[in-house]
Amino acid sequence: MFRPELKVVDCTIRDGGLCNDSHFEVETVRAVYKAICESGVDYVELGYKNSKTMFDPKEFGLWRFCDEDQLRKVTDGIDPGTTKISVMMDAHKSFAEDLAPCDESVIDMIRIATYVKDVDKAIHICKHAHELGYETGVNIMAISTEGSPFLDEALQQLEEETPAKVIYIVDSFGAMYSEEVDYMIERYKKYIKTKEIGLHFHNNQQLAFANTIEGIIQGANFIDGTLYGLGRAAGNCPLELLLGFLKNPKFNMLPILECIGKTIIPLRDSIDWGYHVPYMLTGILNQHPLDAMKWMDREDREDYGKFYKQLNDEVGV
Amino acid sequence: MFRPELKVVDCTIRDGGLCNDSHFEVETVRAVYKAICESGVDYVELGYKNSKTMFDPKEFGLWRFCDEDQLRKVTDGIDPGTTKISVMMDAHKSFAEDLAPCDESVIDMIRIATYVKDVDKAIHICKHAHELGYETGVNIMAISTEGSPFLDEALQQLEEETPAKVIYIVDSFGAMYSEEVDYMIERYKKYIKTKEIGLHFHNNQQLAFANTIEGIIQGANFIDGTLYGLGRAAGNCPLELLLGFLKNPKFNMLPILECIGKTIIPLRDSIDWGYHVPYMLTGILNQHPLDAMKWMDREDREDYGKFYKQLNDEVGV
Repeated sequence: MFRPELKVVDCTIRDGGLCNDSHFEVETVRAVYKAICESGVDYVELGYKNSKTMFDPKEFGLWRFCDEDQLRKVTDGIDPGTTKISVMMDAHKSFAEDLAPCDESVIDMIRIATYVKDVDKAIHICKHAHELGYETGVNIMAISTEGSPFLDEALQQLEEETPAKVIYIVDSFGAMYSEEVDYMIERYKKYIKTKEIGLHFHNNQQLAFANTIEGIIQGANFIDGTLYGLGRAAGNCPLELLLGFLKNPKFNMLPILECIGKTIIPLRDSIDWGYHVPYMLTGILNQHPLDAMKWMDREDREDYGKFYKQLNDEVGV
Repeated sequence: MFRPELKVVDCTIRDGGLCNDSHFEVETVRAVYKAICESGVDYVELGYKNSKTMFDPKEFGLWRFCDEDQLRKVTDGIDPGTTKISVMMDAHKSFAEDLAPCDESVIDMIRIATYVKDVDKAIHICKHAHELGYETGVNIMAISTEGSPFLDEALQQLEEETPAKVIYIVDSFGAMYSEEVDYMIERYKKYIKTKEIGLHFHNNQQLAFANTIEGIIQGANFIDGTLYGLGRAAGNCPLELLLGFLKNPKFNMLPILECIGKTIIPLRDSIDWGYHVPYMLTGILNQHPLDAMKWMDREDREDYGKFYKQLNDEVGV
């Protein structure tokens, strides 16, 4: 009933860090790390390894940079079981040269997030990380806006020029319906022959989990989720739903549920992720959630009609 | 791009009434009715027409009974446009004889909710309502627990013996994955040849909207939604997502969004519908949400591990 080759990646702290400039307490990150290790989930992504020349460490928290000594404060004394550690590097906001050799680090995998236009930067980082001994993957962001042939070119390059294990479809805007997932996987499969296809969906239209299931049915084998869906704006595919669906007996739901109750729910006092009408509207309109996130900070945030009119004015309807 | 024969039913007040014993203020029901009429949605279901011998009017609100004079307080002075009014009768908790002739009522459609075991009661009410001049439909509840051949028999009876326009698939427990939607529609289609198939999904696993899309693709033409998903436990398919997907130019999103902001969001102070771990767990385990609803009333409601263990003890895992 389950597909053993399917790998699950928890990216609670990494994607959640887009809600709070990566300002999580060490104890929070440690609790998430421990729960993921106990649950048997395959990878846990503890943040970004982006450059301090591009993000000011006075403004951004530890998990935007993932320095080795900070990561060890999280991992020391916890049995990782079979769980590997991932960090993400933005192709246009990080430098390959900031990486230490893999055997000097607790990090196992480097995932490079890129727009199609930056794919050559992503390839450079990917190759370098591979040479240092890391597993690698490339996540193509904002895929719902990539109508051009440059996506095909990028996929071909990623297949031919990189050692990446997996190339991801990232629906950054939460704009895709299941038919678009099918279409995109078919398009990927034309080029991606020796690597896995990965899925990272946002939940603006409450479709992150459903689209993940659809992508799994179509053959994708790397799957992202976050605890209780924590992530930018409407958040991500909830990891707990994913484990309930996958039915692989190696996964243990209990530590996940306990961590959600004790560690994630209290974060709602300071972070308001999840389904909200403004995020839904940017999703439907295939727009970055930035305008919606700004709207959510307003006193009159529940005047959804006004926001709808503003968005429609912007797109010229 | 849109399918003109597709009919949308808003059941915010009816299904939402399962969260608060149907105690909505008249002004709330009026605001929802007005918004639905302005939006061009095909039907609006304003409550149950259940028997006062089975529900105590001292305990339950007006919208459990939908007396004609109360309905008129909601509708008077509002232009219905093309929107029709529906009420629901539980096959085992209402009496056909309580209905007035259609031409003396503001009600246009009677939907009968039934378990497979009560289908003969549903058929009786359905025929009687039809004779009185109403459109009719039958909603088969808790469909995810119907593994027996009695469902096939019920479908055959409903096809052959009733004047119903539509027979619904109702996933009361929010337990179904898209593959099960496909399976169930195929099973319905074996018997339902002269009527439409309807969809009413609950959102325990954040799949109500996705399953609705899947069912539409497979040919279902009556679709239920509620404003901001208001409904029992995890709630329903959000109407606003549905309209965004359907793209029928006859629908107007603006009154829907304004009503959510002004009328529905404030209800969150007293009703806690939506995605919560306990509802998710009963969904995954294909159980009625009742245990989860009780759990949500506890002080330690966020001890999800404890609830998970309790559920697993109950099902004997």
